Amino acid sequence: MKILILGGDGYLGWPTAMNLSAHGHEVAVLDNYLRRKLATEEESGPLYDLPELAERCRLWQAHSGKEITSYIGDLCDWDFVAGVFQTFTPEAVVHYAEQPSAPYSMLRRSAATLTINNNLLATANTIFAVRAFCPDAHIVKLGTMGEYGTPNIDIEEGWLDVEHKGRKHKFLYPRQAGSLYHTTKVMDTDLLWFYVRMWDLRVTDLMQGPVYGMMTDENEGQPDLYPHFAYDEIFGTVLNRFVVQAVANYPLTVYGKGGQTRGYLNIKDTLNCIRLSVETPADAGELRIFNQFVETFSVNDLAGRVKSAGEQLGLDVEIKSIDNPRKEMEEHYYNPAHTGLLDLGLEPHFLTEEVLQGIFAVVLQHKDRISDDCIFRGVKWSRTG
Amino acid sequence: MKILILGGDGYLGWPTAMNLSAHGHEVAVLDNYLRRKLATEEESGPLYDLPELAERCRLWQAHSGKEITSYIGDLCDWDFVAGVFQTFTPEAVVHYAEQPSAPYSMLRRSAATLTINNNLLATANTIFAVRAFCPDAHIVKLGTMGEYGTPNIDIEEGWLDVEHKGRKHKFLYPRQAGSLYHTTKVMDTDLLWFYVRMWDLRVTDLMQGPVYGMMTDENEGQPDLYPHFAYDEIFGTVLNRFVVQAVANYPLTVYGKGGQTRGYLNIKDTLNCIRLSVETPADAGELRIFNQFVETFSVNDLAGRVKSAGEQLGLDVEIKSIDNPRKEMEEHYYNPAHTGLLDLGLEPHFLTEEVLQGIFAVVLQHKDRISDDCIFRGVKWSRTG
Repeated sequence: MKILILGGDGYLGWPTAMNLSAHGHEVAVLDNYLRRKLATEEESGPLYDLPELAERCRLWQAHSGKEITSYIGDLCDWDFVAGVFQTFTPEAVVHYAEQPSAPYSMLRRSAATLTINNNLLATANTIFAVRAFCPDAHIVKLGTMGEYGTPNIDIEEGWLDVEHKGRKHKFLYPRQAGSLYHTTKVMDTDLLWFYVRMWDLRVTDLMQGPVYGMMTDENEGQPDLYPHFAYDEIFGTVLNRFVVQAVANYPLTVYGKGGQTRGYLNIKDTLNCIRLSVETPADAGELRIFNQFVETFSVNDLAGRVKSAGEQLGLDVEIKSIDNPRKEMEEHYYNPAHTGLLDLGLEPHFLTEEVLQGIFAVVLQHKDRISDDCIFRGVKWSRTG
Repeated sequence: MKILILGGDGYLGWPTAMNLSAHGHEVAVLDNYLRRKLATEEESGPLYDLPELAERCRLWQAHSGKEITSYIGDLCDWDFVAGVFQTFTPEAVVHYAEQPSAPYSMLRRSAATLTINNNLLATANTIFAVRAFCPDAHIVKLGTMGEYGTPNIDIEEGWLDVEHKGRKHKFLYPRQAGSLYHTTKVMDTDLLWFYVRMWDLRVTDLMQGPVYGMMTDENEGQPDLYPHFAYDEIFGTVLNRFVVQAVANYPLTVYGKGGQTRGYLNIKDTLNCIRLSVETPADAGELRIFNQFVETFSVNDLAGRVKSAGEQLGLDVEIKSIDNPRKEMEEHYYNPAHTGLLDLGLEPHFLTEEVLQGIFAVVLQHKDRISDDCIFRGVKWSRTG
């Protein structure tokens, strides 16, 4: 299948490209290096440096014998987008191409409006490009479990059957996100759902939880093929950050009570979820929604596991509750459904001590690169900007 | 109270400004004439020409002895916005400043992205300006009943109590809009609700139905103070359009079966709803939602009433069902709550034959200006653009 990965330079975009390529698909990646630019501006160094996309494609070809094409440009620039879609005409589009950080979106006004403009226009242009150049193509969009927030009832998989005053209606599950970034993901879903209804698009919207790890089947023993790995407060995901903090002898930053519970998954599972979704497309006129995670943990659970795995390696790991810079519930009900991807055949990788120690091993190799200034700066949700 | 009206040149913005001014408030209007520009581009002529804002403010002062200040500039331009808010420091902000047309938003890709960019950024900048310069000010935002769509259960006033598997949660009422324009209003609500929760803003979000009429207490006998009145398919509202069609001897354009039912209100009620909302602000940290209409009609009901009122005036009025250019339910359940504004003291003006004939009287004076080409062009929801 011809598959175009939007945001192909990212933490998940690049490993997804390699995975789909390894499985025999014809893959192209598109990126404008926005995340690299923002990370540089905010002094959020990655754990290790990585080549740019054209070079990564060359390395992948040398390693695997398979070709990935790269397009460098801005998804918000219609002329560029139209050119790529006319040249490549994908059968599936995997859309990761957004400003991906909740703390970044809360930094200041200009960061908030960049997030709104970029994320909404990237999604709109994707929709319009599919409509114009490959109307039967399947859009696989990365949403987030954060769209749902933490309601006091079970989170269903995308939809909610409501009975009210003796009548019934099936709604898109009501969404209430906890950051501006997550709110733009809610808006993306609104936008996709609208055009699915109007134009019979095929869309799968994946409500993904926080991802951890960097090792995949495709990059084993090939550090140049590793994904971008952020460990800083702004662009890093929580488990990856905790491992780096443990290695750096920086107390694990638990926000408030630490009862914040979310659904997590190994990066390998992300790749399998995407591939399963791509290979079994949504129907025309269907917005198919999967909750993409394999197990739930509280922040305290995660900190405890990282501490335990670190101590096995002889590290001295401290856990420290700090004033929560975010505005969120620190203890709450959380029971989200997640059967759709299992039904498609997903075989989960769970967070074992072995998996954690694998992440520790890579992080330890780059210990000298870790800067305490990146680890925590306390981006406050209450900030005016 | 010091009140800033965003979109003060519009069909409802200008009458609102005069009404609040007449009631003793200190009023300023802000507009960038976007709607005038788009209407010119799309050859959507208004029923009559109107002076620009500075001149309308002078005419209002001559008529009433009261001053309204005008600021001409773009709400998407932060430097301009910051300057206005620092100068005027409103206690209430009435936000009408959006690309207001559903058909416009469906015309083509560039119109869709203009609608997304403009409407979201205008709302975001309003939020950021209030937060930065007048954090206690009350934002009164014009939403639309169209945000709810036409679910098969009762539409409640903004919120829905859901009981699910033995647990309960109160959600923002799930929204599912029928045009891209309406979808941007859903996103506005998402955005406001997020920052209300984060920053304890005071917000009233008014889910307004289609408005009709042009006469208000402030402009009686003063045609230069009339509001902008669009009768074309793109910028006109349905009842106003039907009256113009009846006068032009153009068969009333009922889309499909004509069972599409919505909540309507007289322009005088809009002004009273806004004033009641402004004078009784939402609490800090409250997103207060009112459904702003006073009675429901199907399109067939409206067509029948216009035909009847026109025939009383000796006009020969035909009703013609045409292929529906939109994608919408033509027959559906519709039972929306609307008690909040009545509880605040709203005294509704209903759609009587007398009211209709008042609209006919003004339209008849401008019969020569009506162009059949504007009346209908069939903007298709299925269009690619």
